[in-house]
Amino acid sequence: MSNSKHTSRQFDTELEAVRERVLMMGGLVESQIRLALEALIGNDIALMNRVIADDHRVNALEVEIDEQCTRIIARRQPAANDLRMVMTIIKTIADLERIGDEAKKIAYMARDLSHREHIHLPRYTEIRHAAKLVLDMLHKSLDSFARLDLASVAHVVRQDELVDNEFRAILRYLVTFMMEDPRTISNALEILFIAKAIERMGDHAQNMAEYMVYMVKGRDARHISAEEIEREIQEETMP
Amino acid sequence: MSNSKHTSRQFDTELEAVRERVLMMGGLVESQIRLALEALIGNDIALMNRVIADDHRVNALEVEIDEQCTRIIARRQPAANDLRMVMTIIKTIADLERIGDEAKKIAYMARDLSHREHIHLPRYTEIRHAAKLVLDMLHKSLDSFARLDLASVAHVVRQDELVDNEFRAILRYLVTFMMEDPRTISNALEILFIAKAIERMGDHAQNMAEYMVYMVKGRDARHISAEEIEREIQEETMP
Repeated sequence: MSNSKHTSRQFDTELEAVRERVLMMGGLVESQIRLALEALIGNDIALMNRVIADDHRVNALEVEIDEQCTRIIARRQPAANDLRMVMTIIKTIADLERIGDEAKKIAYMARDLSHREHIHLPRYTEIRHAAKLVLDMLHKSLDSFARLDLASVAHVVRQDELVDNEFRAILRYLVTFMMEDPRTISNALEILFIAKAIERMGDHAQNMAEYMVYMVKGRDARHISAEEIEREIQEETMP
Repeated sequence: MSNSKHTSRQFDTELEAVRERVLMMGGLVESQIRLALEALIGNDIALMNRVIADDHRVNALEVEIDEQCTRIIARRQPAANDLRMVMTIIKTIADLERIGDEAKKIAYMARDLSHREHIHLPRYTEIRHAAKLVLDMLHKSLDSFARLDLASVAHVVRQDELVDNEFRAILRYLVTFMMEDPRTISNALEILFIAKAIERMGDHAQNMAEYMVYMVKGRDARHISAEEIEREIQEETMP
């Protein structure tokens, strides 16, 4: 009995350590997004290079956390809630890694742009706004993970619709821009891909929020609407 | 002893059933890609709608296989090779689901295009070629999964470079197209996004191939080059 208690405490400590590592990885990814945007907007080549160089840290964390999770499953044979937590972590870090990848891509594209003539560049107001939304989504998803709290999950799903709308607005704006002056086409496309990268980050942050429903409620919330998620969350929290 | 043998045989049967389900999901995704391209090239709206409607089958398979895997871990507490297999399946189906998603997006974009004037559409030769490469990559990855054989993994990673090159060629071609006649910009962008969707499918097929190295060798092959993967595979197969 005391032995099993000991094992269980050890297990809790291990799981807590992994959870902290996930949050650390999340913080790093948030910073990568922020720096990639700052580099783009400020045309800061040193910063672009730093974001590109730091992507390996995100990748290394994913591989490391993945290994920790497999080890926990093999040694501790977690059941029910704990197993759900481990499975959620495995999925969450895959999406985090891909958000990091998109940040790196933005830094690469910003570097491409910086080598070109700058006369015909559209402004970054909408890009900045979309990135702000995505950062907020990611932050809420990580917060939901940290506190095992579903309060903001449906909100994150709704915010992803705003990001998609923002992307479509950027697309329309760039089309007008390109039609007015076809010499801007190459630059405008680069910016379009940057917008696309941000839109994909939103998708990944949404995935992360949806895993939380599975983790806390034990039900899969992928492929369903924000309304259904809200119902799902309310069902058992009602008095 | 006979009881543990019985359990182990039951476990093998369960794992085999899940593996078959993954291959079934893979076959469905291959078919979704093929049909989405066929619908695009033949401007077949009924077929586009079918691809869009069938995406839920891919999603349902992912959720189902995911649950089966979690159940296997909870009940059978697999170790070493078997656990690696389960972890690989969990990752593989996430990529398969996203390939299916990209096929659905292609069907949506094809439908958008079909509602527009068709005078200014570039031809689909390169799109077709890129899609053929991606289908081959996916097929090789699934085959590697089915036979636990790493022979084609490095080849898949190399093919992804060809897909990326093909994407850049399509991009250049479309830029010329748009510059010559700015009225084509909207349509050309739609085709660019179709090319982008195909390029992403290639990334996911490459991920799947890389998981196989982990499954068979127990070492993580993400974030390393085709050459490193080849070394990794040869290391222990040499006499």
